Amino acid sequence: MAKLTTRATDYSQWYNEIVQEAWLAESSVVRWCMVIKPYGFAIRENIKDILDKMFKNTGHVNAYFPILIPKSFFSKEAAHVEWFAKECAIVTHYRLKNDPNGKGVIVDPEAKLEEELIIRPTSETIIWNSYKNWIHSYRDLPLLINQRANVMRWEMRTRMFLRTSEFLRQEWHTAHASAEEADAEAKKMLDVYNDFATHFMAIDPVLGVKPEHEKFAGAVETYTFEPIMQDGKALQAGTSHYLGQNFAKAFDVKFTNTKNELEFVYATSRGVSTRLIWWLIMAHSDDQGLIVPPALAPIHVVIVPIFKTPEEYKLIQNYIQPLIDRFETTRLDFKSKYFHDTIPLRWKIDADTNKSPGRKFNEYELKGVPIRITVGARDIASGMVEIFKRELGEKSSVKIEDVDLHIDQYIYKAQNNLLKKNKEFRETHTFTVSTYDEFKEKIEQGFVMAHRDGTTETADKIKTETSATVRCIPFDAVEEAGVCIFSGKPSIRRVLFAKSY
Amino acid sequence: MAKLTTRATDYSQWYNEIVQEAWLAESSVVRWCMVIKPYGFAIRENIKDILDKMFKNTGHVNAYFPILIPKSFFSKEAAHVEWFAKECAIVTHYRLKNDPNGKGVIVDPEAKLEEELIIRPTSETIIWNSYKNWIHSYRDLPLLINQRANVMRWEMRTRMFLRTSEFLRQEWHTAHASAEEADAEAKKMLDVYNDFATHFMAIDPVLGVKPEHEKFAGAVETYTFEPIMQDGKALQAGTSHYLGQNFAKAFDVKFTNTKNELEFVYATSRGVSTRLIWWLIMAHSDDQGLIVPPALAPIHVVIVPIFKTPEEYKLIQNYIQPLIDRFETTRLDFKSKYFHDTIPLRWKIDADTNKSPGRKFNEYELKGVPIRITVGARDIASGMVEIFKRELGEKSSVKIEDVDLHIDQYIYKAQNNLLKKNKEFRETHTFTVSTYDEFKEKIEQGFVMAHRDGTTETADKIKTETSATVRCIPFDAVEEAGVCIFSGKPSIRRVLFAKSY
Repeated sequence: MAKLTTRATDYSQWYNEIVQEAWLAESSVVRWCMVIKPYGFAIRENIKDILDKMFKNTGHVNAYFPILIPKSFFSKEAAHVEWFAKECAIVTHYRLKNDPNGKGVIVDPEAKLEEELIIRPTSETIIWNSYKNWIHSYRDLPLLINQRANVMRWEMRTRMFLRTSEFLRQEWHTAHASAEEADAEAKKMLDVYNDFATHFMAIDPVLGVKPEHEKFAGAVETYTFEPIMQDGKALQAGTSHYLGQNFAKAFDVKFTNTKNELEFVYATSRGVSTRLIWWLIMAHSDDQGLIVPPALAPIHVVIVPIFKTPEEYKLIQNYIQPLIDRFETTRLDFKSKYFHDTIPLRWKIDADTNKSPGRKFNEYELKGVPIRITVGARDIASGMVEIFKRELGEKSSVKIEDVDLHIDQYIYKAQNNLLKKNKEFRETHTFTVSTYDEFKEKIEQGFVMAHRDGTTETADKIKTETSATVRCIPFDAVEEAGVCIFSGKPSIRRVLFAKSY
Repeated sequence: MAKLTTRATDYSQWYNEIVQEAWLAESSVVRWCMVIKPYGFAIRENIKDILDKMFKNTGHVNAYFPILIPKSFFSKEAAHVEWFAKECAIVTHYRLKNDPNGKGVIVDPEAKLEEELIIRPTSETIIWNSYKNWIHSYRDLPLLINQRANVMRWEMRTRMFLRTSEFLRQEWHTAHASAEEADAEAKKMLDVYNDFATHFMAIDPVLGVKPEHEKFAGAVETYTFEPIMQDGKALQAGTSHYLGQNFAKAFDVKFTNTKNELEFVYATSRGVSTRLIWWLIMAHSDDQGLIVPPALAPIHVVIVPIFKTPEEYKLIQNYIQPLIDRFETTRLDFKSKYFHDTIPLRWKIDADTNKSPGRKFNEYELKGVPIRITVGARDIASGMVEIFKRELGEKSSVKIEDVDLHIDQYIYKAQNNLLKKNKEFRETHTFTVSTYDEFKEKIEQGFVMAHRDGTTETADKIKTETSATVRCIPFDAVEEAGVCIFSGKPSIRRVLFAKSY
């Protein structure tokens, strides 16, 4: 294939080409939905498996609730619905029948539902409807439940992994006996996301709280982590909400507290989705294709044997067998605060004689496989193999007995390098400004810390003029007197602005 | 809680009570859909994880296709659609709006889809539509893809795990360059299911091929595994289909073969669902509650400390710490032909002071936790603990240093016992008959092997009169001349009849 469009030429086109050429996903005949192809899905599975262990290590359990939600539920939590209810997939009928004109099938008008059902855009309402029956006393609390499911929000302008009508996500919905416990849960689980982001995604996001006007519908506080992309834009990659008693009131979920009084339950919710894959691609990849952090790579090592005859291949097989025996038992250690396991070294041999070595090199570079090993007859003679290290773009000839050491050192080095690069990029692309002119200049280049007056009105005006929004009030923002860059009114701290996806 | 209804009194009611009391699932406010509760979902996750590894060990990969399928696709494969298309969830609109009368939300009549979309009852059509773009040459084959997803078939009479409108399943859809390869794949994957059934579900099904009139719509051959339930009925637990070129023709998927000729692709498909959980409960459980084979148990060992004060609990904690240290690193070995990993010993301590020990004993017996360990002050004094073995119903006092040995021996013994009991039950409840009178008597008691003339007409009449169907032509059925029990026409072998769910 031809070379990818470069990021400098067209960042958006470059992304689309990576998604296509690395076989990650494609748009579907059903407009607005995507097909996640095997290589893209393998990345998603690695993300899911690690997050799932982190959730279990913090006492959470998985469950599953219905995909269809009665329309009436969408009138219960008014603020919540304002966000989601409008664009959604609505089931109105439950039967097809043969077209009397012989033209395939038609919807049977007799099979109309009494109440329309909505494909879940999110599951708060249906889950809290169950919680109502599960929670009676403080003894039933906390409930720490996670669901993995497809959800649907009707999107007309789609972009693979970033924005499609159907997407896959996990959503946590927890119930607690006190405001303090619920708020602590929301914060703690943001810490879990952050642990995942830094140790596995190799991304160093800004953590903070959303300003009033950017909060999740129905939330008392929305905590967020905001990573920076290579074009300086932000992405709301994941949020964690402390919901107070709003959902409990909407669904009338009360419990008897330790003082034997009836009280509404305190709630949290949060989730991340296949959007993480968009983020992963955008943050690390280069003009040669995808770069996947080794902790999430579907394949860590690919071996490409160079041979013409079955006999030659046999010789190579014998030569590399000791290497493979060791690969089979190698486990990689990416342990973190919330993840305590090791993961197997994932490797493959590509001996497909239908593809040239050059085509294979190109394919695995595009797919971001961290290490490629090439072995031919000459290598056997000299006791060497060739190793290509994707993230460094370096090729070298090494003794076959040193391969393990190279892999072991490089895997962790690549993982750390990616994190280091992302952190440095964020640091060099975060600007502290004092005037609106400075703001307008720097917002084109990255993240901007600026004073603001805290009103929605000002935020809206800045957004209209610059497309930038308040991403969050960072947890580590310093308290300091100042004036709003836009209105000149007093401010007590700078907050994080950025353009975003 | 009161005791469960016994199986002898009401097998169906007994099942419903287990599902409720062991917190496995419940029906939802959305009629026809179920909520899978955490303990039920944990069993489902164990099933999924093991099957997923088996699929990967046989070269399959996962991917994900859209949940919504255009209505027109349901006219493409006529036979296929005859099975599924009629009762399904149909999306006709994509937007809600505020009710002008102020009564919540209504469907926006302006937001009507040009073509209605169906929530997938199965994914053959949408997947083959993608395959059309992915397959050009024999070099692109085989495609061995598995999808895990929710599907929906509108069911009015629901039963938790057995029959609900929405259910979770895996579905394999493979594409091949020859009929032989595709048929071999369909048979091999039935072997994978059988490996899973015997080594993990502890169930010994009959394997065979479906008769013509019971085949999957669009299939050339449907291979099936049919386990026996405690009431002698069969369940179609999983099937594997060789589809020939039917789907490729419907979706016009051709490839260039090695002779450089254009040819339609050969296909297979198959799947198992949350129905496996129904099967698991029905096959093994007893009047005391659920019995889960240890290979799939969410919890292998529960420790119930008996104490009154925090000081007493502290003493127990110290006493059992060495045990827990060993549990932490214990892995169980249920390796089989297609599963090569070990699984961690899953254990928990239930020190909840809100529940009495008696209530806990009852709960874990109901949930089928294989081993319960009870420890109190008296046990510490004597260096003992009490072990209760769920499947044997045996309680004994053992030295604390012997606990590991007891667990190690019992876990595998319980797993084997369950398989042995299921196998013996099937053997003693499979009857070979020669007359229709014998048939009618024995069919009330279990599986029946009988001659039949191979016509759909006869099969239909037998079904009308006895409710029994031909479950399969077992792979190990002996060729022997005989006459149909119903019509007296010639037959070359006996086939398996049973009543079924």
